[in-house]
Amino acid sequence: MEIDANGLEVLGHAECLALMQTIPIGRVVFTEQALPAVQPVNFVLDGDSVVIRTAPGSKLAAATRGAVVAFETDDFDTTAGTGWSVTAVGQARAVRDPKEIARLSRLPLQPWSPGPKEHFIRISCHRLTGRRIVPVAPGSGGQAA
Amino acid sequence: MEIDANGLEVLGHAECLALMQTIPIGRVVFTEQALPAVQPVNFVLDGDSVVIRTAPGSKLAAATRGAVVAFETDDFDTTAGTGWSVTAVGQARAVRDPKEIARLSRLPLQPWSPGPKEHFIRISCHRLTGRRIVPVAPGSGGQAA
Repeated sequence: MEIDANGLEVLGHAECLALMQTIPIGRVVFTEQALPAVQPVNFVLDGDSVVIRTAPGSKLAAATRGAVVAFETDDFDTTAGTGWSVTAVGQARAVRDPKEIARLSRLPLQPWSPGPKEHFIRISCHRLTGRRIVPVAPGSGGQAA
Repeated sequence: MEIDANGLEVLGHAECLALMQTIPIGRVVFTEQALPAVQPVNFVLDGDSVVIRTAPGSKLAAATRGAVVAFETDDFDTTAGTGWSVTAVGQARAVRDPKEIARLSRLPLQPWSPGPKEHFIRISCHRLTGRRIVPVAPGSGGQAA
């Protein structure tokens, strides 16, 4: 087990992908009007990339167009003091090919908020990092992962 | 109830703060080597600002020094398709005053990862936005909040 400078277990690429598949919600991290911005979204993994849906004219669609973004997922058990987080950093690309859009439309990407969201964005998970908390006795820190 | 362009309920400042207090984990969004970065942390609200702890020499301490960052918290019920998210955008400031450090050390800021974390960072919640999902029937979207 590899441990980083913060005492957290370093997760490998395959384990990062496996953990991401257990969670339907992640957070897109981008820049909006020169300020840091973050938005929770439903997502699915499609091969080695994250796929999200939004409305074509949404702020998220505009802000992530061709941009390098981060995509974060995590799961923490606040009672047990355990958990993990995985972050991908990669270029966000709008999906333009009608055949690919048709295929992505059939993926289990559950909608929550109302309105049509027929704009698909793919975020490469080429650069993927993950950490897991190795539980410790309380009294010495405050960084979750 | 105010609804935004995405069909999400817009939360007021006081409700945002109240919801943030129900969750011990948030995510600091910042820039690291010109790339978007995000890190989950334990936090507490101290008045109108977020307080986090880290190690003095940590990457997080360096990357957030005087920077404008975002801080996001959320809570989603993936079965019910409900949830909320709150995001603060503000300047991160290292706490230097020994009396304030002593006071912050007594706040219920539960440590999870090992190692001393005696560096406190305060993030202003002056600019605070929040959204809540108004549940809809599946079939029309994919944006969580």
